[in-house]
Amino acid sequence: MTSPVLLQIDFDYAGPYGDELAQLSAGLAADIAAEPGLIWKIWTEDQAGGCAGGWYVFETRSQAETYLAKHSQRLQAFGVTAVRARYFAANEALSAITRSPLSA
Amino acid sequence: MTSPVLLQIDFDYAGPYGDELAQLSAGLAADIAAEPGLIWKIWTEDQAGGCAGGWYVFETRSQAETYLAKHSQRLQAFGVTAVRARYFAANEALSAITRSPLSA
Repeated sequence: MTSPVLLQIDFDYAGPYGDELAQLSAGLAADIAAEPGLIWKIWTEDQAGGCAGGWYVFETRSQAETYLAKHSQRLQAFGVTAVRARYFAANEALSAITRSPLSA
Repeated sequence: MTSPVLLQIDFDYAGPYGDELAQLSAGLAADIAAEPGLIWKIWTEDQAGGCAGGWYVFETRSQAETYLAKHSQRLQAFGVTAVRARYFAANEALSAITRSPLSA
């Protein structure tokens, strides 16, 4: 397997958060779970700071890019117009020392 | 257990990356692995984009804040003066649907 691609996104966000978001977005989460190449996503949220996003691990950069384009469009329905996105590789040797779940 | 605290940091960074960084920073990684409250860290790097950082999971916000203050000082030795940092909670119900390693 080639090295996975990490996609980090966050955006200013008015809500809903927490349980309310979970109820509203369970179907979306199931759809994201079926996204080609997605290994996992952690849904990130900071209600006090008015910010949300996600930490994603994809099999390939191309799959991550396809997802980001699709997801950015979906987020517009939540009033999100500016998504901050960064692609990374994991430094696997260092991450293994710090108990990365990618190394399990 | 209370909900873990996610710390996302990234910064403009001139290198080294990859294997060279891993050799240089193995001792630092061992120190970070012993940081109070750290569950795991994934070391993120984007050599083409000149950016690096980390995805961290801590037991408490207070422990994450203590770490960030310490780590920001250490990063100055690598020429990093501006660290972008965000604290998040995980939306655990949604993350579980998308195979989050926090749900394992």
